[in-house]
Amino acid sequence: MQELKSIYEITKNFDGFLFDAYGVLVDEQGLLEGATELLSHLESIGKPFWMLTNGSSKTVADTVKRYRNMGLPFSVDNVITSGALLSDCLDQLTEPGQAIGVLGTEGSHQLVRDAGRCPVAITESKDFDILVIANQTDYDFVPALDAALSLAIDRIDRGLNFTVVLTNPDLFYPKGENRFGITAGSVSLILEECLKLRYGSLPPNRIIKLGKPFPPMFREAERRAGSKRLVMVGDQIYTDIKGANDYGFQSVLVATGLTGREMLDSLDDSLKPSYFVNHLKES
Amino acid sequence: MQELKSIYEITKNFDGFLFDAYGVLVDEQGLLEGATELLSHLESIGKPFWMLTNGSSKTVADTVKRYRNMGLPFSVDNVITSGALLSDCLDQLTEPGQAIGVLGTEGSHQLVRDAGRCPVAITESKDFDILVIANQTDYDFVPALDAALSLAIDRIDRGLNFTVVLTNPDLFYPKGENRFGITAGSVSLILEECLKLRYGSLPPNRIIKLGKPFPPMFREAERRAGSKRLVMVGDQIYTDIKGANDYGFQSVLVATGLTGREMLDSLDDSLKPSYFVNHLKES
Repeated sequence: MQELKSIYEITKNFDGFLFDAYGVLVDEQGLLEGATELLSHLESIGKPFWMLTNGSSKTVADTVKRYRNMGLPFSVDNVITSGALLSDCLDQLTEPGQAIGVLGTEGSHQLVRDAGRCPVAITESKDFDILVIANQTDYDFVPALDAALSLAIDRIDRGLNFTVVLTNPDLFYPKGENRFGITAGSVSLILEECLKLRYGSLPPNRIIKLGKPFPPMFREAERRAGSKRLVMVGDQIYTDIKGANDYGFQSVLVATGLTGREMLDSLDDSLKPSYFVNHLKES
Repeated sequence: MQELKSIYEITKNFDGFLFDAYGVLVDEQGLLEGATELLSHLESIGKPFWMLTNGSSKTVADTVKRYRNMGLPFSVDNVITSGALLSDCLDQLTEPGQAIGVLGTEGSHQLVRDAGRCPVAITESKDFDILVIANQTDYDFVPALDAALSLAIDRIDRGLNFTVVLTNPDLFYPKGENRFGITAGSVSLILEECLKLRYGSLPPNRIIKLGKPFPPMFREAERRAGSKRLVMVGDQIYTDIKGANDYGFQSVLVATGLTGREMLDSLDDSLKPSYFVNHLKES
């Protein structure tokens, strides 16, 4: 791990930059210092950049609108949400027009509609073999989980298909000072551990995880950049840094979010970022 | 593992018998065949028995009433619920009269009151350092989990005490044919994995688990029996059988519940029961 005084020391070393949003470019108070200047600098030297964000409660268009309103120069072309990977994933699993169970917000249902499928609430239908877990809100938690678990066990016991697609694998997120909230990864965790307990282990494609740190998000970034010489700038070890390292990208940990410098020394090498920097300002 | 034609072959080999309830003595339709006859036989040959059941949504008195109404000869002296272990556990952790956070039913709150403490709902107070996770219902799930997680992180970050007491470690339970429901263990699982992600690992007493397969339940059975020459009769590998084996009791798997004979061969030796029997009938 190399400690940088400024991220500007390495802006010419890569074919493109990948940024996490929360704790890197913005926080709950708004823009973080240096964020817009760094993105302008990258534009001026011809280095493309993308935002990679775990989230599937909003469409990409709504996500872009939110960050543009904050003053960040993003468009639908350079924002990759984990929810937006759903369409390709469903194309590989099913025919268009099929019913898909959804645990999530109206925005999550819209992602499934945008992917050419028919979203159904899990407590209203059992007639599907793919369940998208997109969010923790806007459904009655325990009855919905009971229905999901019962359907999964019933279908697996009968030798039928049942696939969970998790569009946001984060277990929890920072909601503001001293406040945290569970998210879709925690919902999927319950199903995963219950099914492991019942069946001993799960086949690798029983639960497909789309966001960071899993490969589909980074694969999409590589596809859009047309290069693997990319660097991920993030604030979280187990999503941003681990994901980039595992995929073969380089990584920068920036200390403006959830991880401080003092937390890095005890980490395994596979979890250490390529670079560390205190903030995104030029100096 | 020895396969028995009848459990009556071994009734004289032990100082006492421990029974799981669901899938062993009863199921959703009522009494299982041979259950009352076996308990009468044990009484007639002077062998004491206890019911060991993971549950903390009812008091012991209500649990006894339920099983007596079904025709089983239990009293408060020979029913051990995981919820009933709470009182001793809290005596080791706190002074009487203290406020204790509770996630659970009114029955769960009553268990805390019976233990001489003041139960408070987690969304109404932050003024406690012990959280009892007793049940998955009767509270607004996501806001309650968010409050629990935020409180845990805030207290741990400030170097203060924070202990979770899980009175029912089961992840899920059978609700009836093809229907399953998540329970308190799944609630605690979310907190446990979020805290592990944030802190790398947890000190052993951060989350105290009282029910099967954990030692407190079996320790209480040994205390009441005044002997370690006991055998646990159960239908679940990871609670009844693993718990008894780990504690040093012998174990009988009976095939009237969640585990069939065909599921045993692939298990590690530490998970195999001492005996297998198809049912509790004499022949």
